[in-house]
Amino acid sequence: MAICEIISVGTELLLGDIINTDARFLSEQLAQMGISVYRQTTVGDNEERLNETFLQALSRSDIVILTGGLGPTEDDITKEVCCAALNERLVKHEETENAIKEFFEKRGYEMPQSNMKQAFVPENGIILKNENGTAPGLVIEKNQKCVILLPGPPNELEGMFKKFALPYLRKYSESVIVSRKINTIQIGESALAELAGDFLKMSNPTVAPYAKSGEAFLRLTAGAETREAANLLLEPVLNELTKRLAPYIYGIDAENMETAVVKLLKEKQKKLSVAESCTAGYIAKRITDIPGASQVFDCGAVTYSNEMKMKLLNVKAKTLQSHGAVSEETAREMAEGMKKLSGADIAIAVTGIAGPENEGKKPAGLSYVAAVCENKTVVEKIETGRNGREYNRYVTGTRALNLARKLLLEMN
Amino acid sequence: MAICEIISVGTELLLGDIINTDARFLSEQLAQMGISVYRQTTVGDNEERLNETFLQALSRSDIVILTGGLGPTEDDITKEVCCAALNERLVKHEETENAIKEFFEKRGYEMPQSNMKQAFVPENGIILKNENGTAPGLVIEKNQKCVILLPGPPNELEGMFKKFALPYLRKYSESVIVSRKINTIQIGESALAELAGDFLKMSNPTVAPYAKSGEAFLRLTAGAETREAANLLLEPVLNELTKRLAPYIYGIDAENMETAVVKLLKEKQKKLSVAESCTAGYIAKRITDIPGASQVFDCGAVTYSNEMKMKLLNVKAKTLQSHGAVSEETAREMAEGMKKLSGADIAIAVTGIAGPENEGKKPAGLSYVAAVCENKTVVEKIETGRNGREYNRYVTGTRALNLARKLLLEMN
Repeated sequence: MAICEIISVGTELLLGDIINTDARFLSEQLAQMGISVYRQTTVGDNEERLNETFLQALSRSDIVILTGGLGPTEDDITKEVCCAALNERLVKHEETENAIKEFFEKRGYEMPQSNMKQAFVPENGIILKNENGTAPGLVIEKNQKCVILLPGPPNELEGMFKKFALPYLRKYSESVIVSRKINTIQIGESALAELAGDFLKMSNPTVAPYAKSGEAFLRLTAGAETREAANLLLEPVLNELTKRLAPYIYGIDAENMETAVVKLLKEKQKKLSVAESCTAGYIAKRITDIPGASQVFDCGAVTYSNEMKMKLLNVKAKTLQSHGAVSEETAREMAEGMKKLSGADIAIAVTGIAGPENEGKKPAGLSYVAAVCENKTVVEKIETGRNGREYNRYVTGTRALNLARKLLLEMN
Repeated sequence: MAICEIISVGTELLLGDIINTDARFLSEQLAQMGISVYRQTTVGDNEERLNETFLQALSRSDIVILTGGLGPTEDDITKEVCCAALNERLVKHEETENAIKEFFEKRGYEMPQSNMKQAFVPENGIILKNENGTAPGLVIEKNQKCVILLPGPPNELEGMFKKFALPYLRKYSESVIVSRKINTIQIGESALAELAGDFLKMSNPTVAPYAKSGEAFLRLTAGAETREAANLLLEPVLNELTKRLAPYIYGIDAENMETAVVKLLKEKQKKLSVAESCTAGYIAKRITDIPGASQVFDCGAVTYSNEMKMKLLNVKAKTLQSHGAVSEETAREMAEGMKKLSGADIAIAVTGIAGPENEGKKPAGLSYVAAVCENKTVVEKIETGRNGREYNRYVTGTRALNLARKLLLEMN
């Protein structure tokens, strides 16, 4: 099996200014092709350390992918360092030069002189067109090794990889790796691992638990000569685990909870609407992350203040006074009000303390989520603890969506 | 200056299942302390490769921080590998054992037997309490090197680092590093670099451009014996650059556009409301990411369908028929309708094609953003291209917030 290393270049990564989404994206793509990523390394825009890291990666891998440092500024040195190490001369590439000029012309700007640097490519390199920026991607094959240079900005890298680098890498993808994922909710990673028991010791498929954003997953991975053979290995294990873990499973191979809910809404031809206080648009955003969500989602209301809860959702002043905005009663009235306002088949609502600080007697992470359909309203109390706003709001949103999912399963 | 390397352990990172937020968080924290991070490396749950990576990092750094692989399952081996390499015996730690038991008791679960593994700690180690999980953090000092092991889940790691690891690391923070950031909008990285010109060649402070999510930034970094001395080095450079780049600057040291806008709203004591079609809650979510946003934000409306644009925001049927939902006119009426509905001082609205596909003649990435205050309405057309839903929705949201910012600057 081909072994690959990813090197991310950029002092901004080492300073924590930006998060390394490129390494995640590439790793995922390569895993799907059955190319093993053994290491991801991040180094700064420093010639000596980049050179050392590159040579080391080259010595132990078949494929080395570098991202970043192809920009027009002087601290962008990835191409120069790699080509020097590989003894590749940089030559001007007319087609690329024209593409860069055109890129700026289209946007009504003049090309800054510094961008000319990006028109220089390794003499024996293959050029990957950049449809969203100016730095071309580059492939250099030498001494049975394959080196790929990709631009750092994710919107440039992702398109380029899928369209041009991926077809090129196919030849390294000998065996077929198939992965399946079991998505669970309301169970921890270690409890999940205990339920999976002996399956965790298998070698093909492998079964491994992991946790992310308040959810636990099992990943099943099989390698074989064909996709069919890999699937045959996976099937009995997946079936048995699905039975064992049934009460906790919200999806198989679901990207996340919102994907599972949107899929179910489409199947059942139902519409959902959302009333949000503490999550304040986060749930609506997650639903509409999915292309085509407009089939199942019309509207949401972000009612942060009590006034707006009353005005838009018809929550009673008395309810807010006697139970408070963060209460079972308010969550219920928000969901019911949202269903009326929108005319949707299901409405969900969230009210809570996002944190990071407690509010009076109510602790950060305390929320109530409600879901209502034609003949049923359910409310759940959730305590996510003092885990910060992002975590609390994400997990609360997931739990609200899960309520909608459970109602949907009961509907025709 | 102390040199540090970060090693992230976890096959799920190499498979691209999760994104490495820990490395970003730690890098940022360490940079602020003047501890240089020279490398971030990610390896899988593989004994041989973890051992090799750890020994290499130890040989060239003063501090090695490892994250992940402290869990209760059998593939969690970070503690075992590091302690073997450092010749540290693992012994049971009663206090930690009790803390783990208590963790489960509080949640009404019984402790899975596998979690006992987490009560074993290096004989000469310092224990960092985990307030959000079961794996304690560990510090081992040996041969003038410092090794720190932290749990992988970000909500466990971040609290533990700030509360227990950071105070401990203070002794490595000899010189003071101060960083400033200039946030710009509507200018590219290379054009920004050209305007910054000779400043990019300075060595103390250094000035470096970088780009992220459709925005360009300049980072100024100075090192000195005291914070005051570092600030003295930064001041004249920051002043001159602020003048040169004035038309593009939306903030100095702003975390992002929403932070800048919320800050300005607080200063001017104004309230904002948001009507969103294609961004569908994303802008409201970003505003309310900021603790205390409730002072300046009451409500938002997510009007995905035409029907809801009419019902909630009073957009005219005629406008939608003759100009379409994605048009200057609709954006304007959405913003004006939102202002009326909410009674806020400023309302912004967004309508567009999030993508990834074009819709009829309207291309993905085409949006109109509008902002309205008491006596003025402004609308802007935006084309972010075929860059994917997330990018398009983020950048469009940023531009809508920027319109609000510009209106606010004109208000008393």
